[in-house]
Amino acid sequence: MVRLRASMSARASAIETMIDRLLPRVEGGEARLIDAMRYATLGGGKRLRGYLVAEVASLFKTGAEAADRVAASVEMLHAYSLVHDDLPAMDDDDLRRGQPSTHRKFDEATAILAGDALQTMSFDILANPLTHASAEVRINLVRALADASGAAGMVGGQMIDMEGEGRALSLEEVARLHALKTGCLIRYAAEAGAILGQANDDVRRRISAYGRDLGAAFQIADDVLDATASAEELGKTAGKDEAAGKSTYVALLGVEGAAREARRVAEQAESHIDIFGPEADRLRDLVHYVVERRN
Amino acid sequence: MVRLRASMSARASAIETMIDRLLPRVEGGEARLIDAMRYATLGGGKRLRGYLVAEVASLFKTGAEAADRVAASVEMLHAYSLVHDDLPAMDDDDLRRGQPSTHRKFDEATAILAGDALQTMSFDILANPLTHASAEVRINLVRALADASGAAGMVGGQMIDMEGEGRALSLEEVARLHALKTGCLIRYAAEAGAILGQANDDVRRRISAYGRDLGAAFQIADDVLDATASAEELGKTAGKDEAAGKSTYVALLGVEGAAREARRVAEQAESHIDIFGPEADRLRDLVHYVVERRN
Repeated sequence: MVRLRASMSARASAIETMIDRLLPRVEGGEARLIDAMRYATLGGGKRLRGYLVAEVASLFKTGAEAADRVAASVEMLHAYSLVHDDLPAMDDDDLRRGQPSTHRKFDEATAILAGDALQTMSFDILANPLTHASAEVRINLVRALADASGAAGMVGGQMIDMEGEGRALSLEEVARLHALKTGCLIRYAAEAGAILGQANDDVRRRISAYGRDLGAAFQIADDVLDATASAEELGKTAGKDEAAGKSTYVALLGVEGAAREARRVAEQAESHIDIFGPEADRLRDLVHYVVERRN
Repeated sequence: MVRLRASMSARASAIETMIDRLLPRVEGGEARLIDAMRYATLGGGKRLRGYLVAEVASLFKTGAEAADRVAASVEMLHAYSLVHDDLPAMDDDDLRRGQPSTHRKFDEATAILAGDALQTMSFDILANPLTHASAEVRINLVRALADASGAAGMVGGQMIDMEGEGRALSLEEVARLHALKTGCLIRYAAEAGAILGQANDDVRRRISAYGRDLGAAFQIADDVLDATASAEELGKTAGKDEAAGKSTYVALLGVEGAAREARRVAEQAESHIDIFGPEADRLRDLVHYVVERRN
């Protein structure tokens, strides 16, 4: 796990540097927009999604520049979703990673626009020839990201989440909600590494299944964390799910039951990558990390 | 002009049908999201951007299916920008084409998410192989749309617009604001037709310049309309620019001066496509249409 943390931290730095390069400060009326985009994307986070892209890509010996660009792209997409999720009309969250959320630091209009532009930029980066990959690979990345993040993916999940507030959801409904809301993008991150590496269909399917189950385990563990960790540990408001009357794994299975379910799904994630040798050990460690983390 | 109106109206129907096909109703928690996306995109508008895509593409004898898909994509991108623009934190507009704006018909959270998902979908459509074009052509469309609509294009322009409210802008600043805010996407629409048609660089540059000037003429004419037309004619609140203390062409040049400037820029637009024969006559008519329309 120490090995994993060092590897994640090194990759997070590389992604940070890449985002900084892709989003240089500008002068003029749009300076505030770029500042908000930088605020929302730089300086923090575990970069789980970016790490996944890069680690999977490294299985296929993909160039680091391409992997870092695709990693920066998915982190921008993720950041856009957080900026919009935190808005007053949505989750109305004042804190994000222990700092004022983007609309609190700037203002609502700027946060809406910064989120919009971050989404655009995440597609722009994938499509750009500077992401050293063939047009075919780049178009496949764009398609996979759009599938994962649009109405049939992340945003669809956010809608279901809003619709479900205050209503008791079944375990099946909660699982579907999370599969869409957070699972799709985590699955995409793993898959993006395989697309970049031009993995064959069978390998791509395995990596995708690994990402899907890793994402599910991550979310179940997140529910457990929300119920058990302090705001200080989380860097965001704790116990929010219960306060919002949201159906969670913890509400349905209890803290112990949810923790057990997280471990079960995590083991399942690991099983999908058993065709790989020790070069996939960090992906295996990552499975344990997502269920054992405290923030 | 009668000929043009018939052509625009036929194309608008084809685009409407395509959007309806691309955005089928669904059941479940995400039904509300899809309904809002349909509400924001179907049933109205001149479809200027979609028409441009299709008319330019037809110069190169591109298949109708591909052109209609790219046209639907740009209309979705445009619709997303209107949905977010109308939000309370932005322009706070209750009306759009004479109907309640999306956040009034649904709610703010749904409008934010519907806009987000429409943006994603516009990229998704371009990238999809069903848009009968090579991976190279599709990736060029994605890149061109991202350039036109992101922080260095439309969204950047919206930010400058918000920043400029209540401050007197120079003619140069107003021109730059509009070139970004509305011009980039109109220019893109023309260029997308040329990309789809695999036009050579020189032709693509001419079409792009035509689109840029057409967009500028459109916006200057829009300022004139806002100052002179009724809410009934506009289908939206009239006189809003002045009320918001926005710097407009009319504020800087007067109604007559702005109308003259619109005609000058329109003529310039026409000059860029003088290499084409009568097959471009509708694109010429379009130039006159944008400066003479009353809504």
